[in-house]
Amino acid sequence: MNRFTLVLHCPNVIGIVYQVSKFLFERNANITESAQYDDEISDRFFMRVAFVMPDDAETAESLLEAFSPIADRFNMQTQFHAEDERPRILILASKSTHCLADLLQRHSSGELAVDILGILSNHRGQPERLAAQYELPFEYLDLDSLGKAAAEERILTIMRDQQIDLTVLARYMQILSDNFCQQASCPIINIHHSFLPSFKGARPYHQAFAKGVKLVGATAHYVTPDLDEGPIIEQDVARVNHAMGALGLVEIGRDLEKAVLARAVKLHVRHRVLPNGPRTVVFA
Amino acid sequence: MNRFTLVLHCPNVIGIVYQVSKFLFERNANITESAQYDDEISDRFFMRVAFVMPDDAETAESLLEAFSPIADRFNMQTQFHAEDERPRILILASKSTHCLADLLQRHSSGELAVDILGILSNHRGQPERLAAQYELPFEYLDLDSLGKAAAEERILTIMRDQQIDLTVLARYMQILSDNFCQQASCPIINIHHSFLPSFKGARPYHQAFAKGVKLVGATAHYVTPDLDEGPIIEQDVARVNHAMGALGLVEIGRDLEKAVLARAVKLHVRHRVLPNGPRTVVFA
Amino acid sequence: MNRFTLVLHCPNVIGIVYQVSKFLFERNANITESAQYDDEISDRFFMRVAFVMPDDAETAESLLEAFSPIADRFNMQTQFHAEDERPRILILASKSTHCLADLLQRHSSGELAVDILGILSNHRGQPERLAAQYELPFEYLDLDSLGKAAAEERILTIMRDQQIDLTVLARYMQILSDNFCQQASCPIINIHHSFLPSFKGARPYHQAFAKGVKLVGATAHYVTPDLDEGPIIEQDVARVNHAMGALGLVEIGRDLEKAVLARAVKLHVRHRVLPNGPRTVVFA
Amino acid sequence: MNRFTLVLHCPNVIGIVYQVSKFLFERNANITESAQYDDEISDRFFMRVAFVMPDDAETAESLLEAFSPIADRFNMQTQFHAEDERPRILILASKSTHCLADLLQRHSSGELAVDILGILSNHRGQPERLAAQYELPFEYLDLDSLGKAAAEERILTIMRDQQIDLTVLARYMQILSDNFCQQASCPIINIHHSFLPSFKGARPYHQAFAKGVKLVGATAHYVTPDLDEGPIIEQDVARVNHAMGALGLVEIGRDLEKAVLARAVKLHVRHRVLPNGPRTVVFA
Repeated sequence: MNRFTLVLHCPNVIGIVYQVSKFLFERNANITESAQYDDEISDRFFMRVAFVMPDDAETAESLLEAFSPIADRFNMQTQFHAEDERPRILILASKSTHCLADLLQRHSSGELAVDILGILSNHRGQPERLAAQYELPFEYLDLDSLGKAAAEERILTIMRDQQIDLTVLARYMQILSDNFCQQASCPIINIHHSFLPSFKGARPYHQAFAKGVKLVGATAHYVTPDLDEGPIIEQDVARVNHAMGALGLVEIGRDLEKAVLARAVKLHVRHRVLPNGPRTVVFA
Repeated sequence: MNRFTLVLHCPNVIGIVYQVSKFLFERNANITESAQYDDEISDRFFMRVAFVMPDDAETAESLLEAFSPIADRFNMQTQFHAEDERPRILILASKSTHCLADLLQRHSSGELAVDILGILSNHRGQPERLAAQYELPFEYLDLDSLGKAAAEERILTIMRDQQIDLTVLARYMQILSDNFCQQASCPIINIHHSFLPSFKGARPYHQAFAKGVKLVGATAHYVTPDLDEGPIIEQDVARVNHAMGALGLVEIGRDLEKAVLARAVKLHVRHRVLPNGPRTVVFA
Repeated sequence: MNRFTLVLHCPNVIGIVYQVSKFLFERNANITESAQYDDEISDRFFMRVAFVMPDDAETAESLLEAFSPIADRFNMQTQFHAEDERPRILILASKSTHCLADLLQRHSSGELAVDILGILSNHRGQPERLAAQYELPFEYLDLDSLGKAAAEERILTIMRDQQIDLTVLARYMQILSDNFCQQASCPIINIHHSFLPSFKGARPYHQAFAKGVKLVGATAHYVTPDLDEGPIIEQDVARVNHAMGALGLVEIGRDLEKAVLARAVKLHVRHRVLPNGPRTVVFA
Repeated sequence: MNRFTLVLHCPNVIGIVYQVSKFLFERNANITESAQYDDEISDRFFMRVAFVMPDDAETAESLLEAFSPIADRFNMQTQFHAEDERPRILILASKSTHCLADLLQRHSSGELAVDILGILSNHRGQPERLAAQYELPFEYLDLDSLGKAAAEERILTIMRDQQIDLTVLARYMQILSDNFCQQASCPIINIHHSFLPSFKGARPYHQAFAKGVKLVGATAHYVTPDLDEGPIIEQDVARVNHAMGALGLVEIGRDLEKAVLARAVKLHVRHRVLPNGPRTVVFA
């Protein structure tokens, strides 16, 4: 038996659920999980169905082809994913490696069922050492000698050549150019160390401390050309107080960043995040 | 146009979603929200569908009748609820009235779309005054002169005579007899002032303080003959510290109790809680 | 025996704790709780000490006088409060009365040990009815006939005449003028229905929904002439999802607003909030 | 300038704060943080003071000696710690290495300012590999060939020989004997994967799933001969739902366990946890 996930979105009309469930029923599929959502603002319909197929011959490709009349009729964006499909991941990191180390440990323990094709960093030292520890490919982006444009070209080339499905910015502290964001051949998830939309840009914990907030946050979002403005996938906060100082906020924030980025990456690679314009639909 | 909710559960087999969506599609119903769950332990299927019917003549009764062949075929427990249906509620309270006052305020503001048929209490004073403030029927249960058995009989009579759909124990500090629990003609929701299964029984905040826990909790659950053991609907916790003392825990706990009980009652009357043996399925 | 609280702040130098504890020791005071904080940015020292005096003749006034040499020497802002002192409170409300109702219930149950001198509202209906229920003075601010300036004058007059210690804006949906903020004879606490500094101004839940945040928040802060910019006292958040819609966020937010405003008011009237420029020191 | 922390507890009498602050004032110490607590149940006084000494010649030892008349007079348990003192840590792990990996990463990044003297495990594989990655001493406890008593003797020997200050059970899945707990020459912190006192013993997530709780938790506590009954240092919870299954709870729980154990260890090695019989005083 094979397990699959179907995710789709399309303009909202009557009969979508009926056609999807008919398609699955006719193939003796057992639905194990299903979620749907009608967005009243965009008037779009979003659906995610996990199911088991008794027929071992079925593949994500064969299902997609068989489903294409329905997809065409409803003007759907459709994906079928086999459960054993492993997304191909690229990770970018800088000097602060807590998020990188956390992702590598989750990958190593089997919690994060992806293939990590490479780790790129504009810093040697900890990032390179972590890559070596976990026996993963590392490449140093020498921003000083390459310049920013060439470094971005190098990342784009790797994305394409390695057929990367998802790029993760694990506290990669470089602002990406508009051109890069537009040329990227896969979605990019960033972790921003504040509760967006508060405290965009640099040194958000210092901004938070100066403002005297009583909670600090972290936000994982898709990267768009607008800095720290892309669709939010996941957020969380932790309580702080006056006595902690900006450095205390940084320390507490690191745990938030690790947890929020890991949750966002897992939600994405488990096909639980659907794009909805400037927002996301998350079937958690 | 009329809005309805269908909730059902039955043994899990292939084809249920297909039949339900076919039924709705044939009636031009627009599904606005849908959730389902297969429980692998009980091997039962649970579903909740909210939909809009274009035909104004349809009622919950007519839908239930039309649906009965499907319900019979799959051996389903099925309910259809019209959106404007208002569950009939009975509230029992004692001396601590924070939960009672909270429910009455939510009812008064329109947040809690129910009819409150009566407030019963083994204390006069605050409970009676609150009922008067909100112009709701009050009855004093004089436990000393009635005795416990007669008081329980009186509650059961009101439940039946008033056709109560849900009884809420808003910090009603009397242990109900097995006989009462078995005779009750409607579900009963209780709020227990601890994170169950910890600290069952009396004075849970004092138990929690003595144990030195760092979080206190509250739990809303259905009442069964086993004290504080019924299926859990909702829980929450709040952080405490050594300096608060047992009375500080009581004060912090009151806010938890109000919020958790209100959420549980809203989930129940919005048909989002389905029974699953000793547990619940909550489509939040 | 009499219980007192001393709160003070002053430029940070060596010897403050020694002088304070010496003062208390010489009077046989038993310190029951003490907290202090050195702010490295403002270089100020903040302290709160709760203590029991064996001498029944001592009052807050006599202690303040006896302490004045120390206060002068260290250039301290100092307050002594007797435990049985009840702050005098004025509440302003509008159409949404969940925060007002919550405060009145806490006051009625004894949790909020203050005297409520009056409830002012630019709406009749629910606010007036709540005041009547709890037998508290109510005054209608008829903004249409009075005009905004005269209404603010009326509030300022009541503040002064009634010797109000704290004014609470319990979802009072009028922007207060700079002049009002400067003339106010007591601190003013406002509840803003977002996680500030995100979503200042009008309709913050609709802003939050449009942004697609995964948590909504509420913030209690002191009012300053800068709208929604005053020092933050307390904040909290709750998890939301795409399916809730803006109205779902409003409903979830109401519970946050009630809890956060109540906590802020309790912290203030228990002398646990000290001003620190644009921020606060909260000895929770 | 040297930074120190003083922690003490003793029977509660008047004058302790005065004597401590006098001692510090006479040495020109600048108090940077101070917290105290009177426990009304045990009638004991607890205090933690962080301060800066202008005299570079002072050491923790010299301060302890100078302070001894006060300590004797008030029958105090007293410790002085220099800021650059690094506690000596031993870690025990088993097959699940998420907590071990998390601690090693925090240590490697400088967040956890301790010396890790050794990692012991009854499993080779991941624990040994992690030790090698971080270049830390590893020893395999071959329970099958050694037997439990000899393995415990080996741990006790290492504790004593290496002058270990704290042993951390990072998901070490062996029950320790009463004898071991009594012979241990240092405190032992354990992470239990439930919100204690709920779900003691084996497979707590499966117990939690069977009970249908809506939140799962993790608890860090000192080890005593009573299994999962020692004084609690830190706890936290995360929301779960019916659809996650026991394995989903395990995955969510891992993040709790890492965070809670790390917070408990940091609180302990920063001298913020004081014993209070079956409970702890935590100056967070």
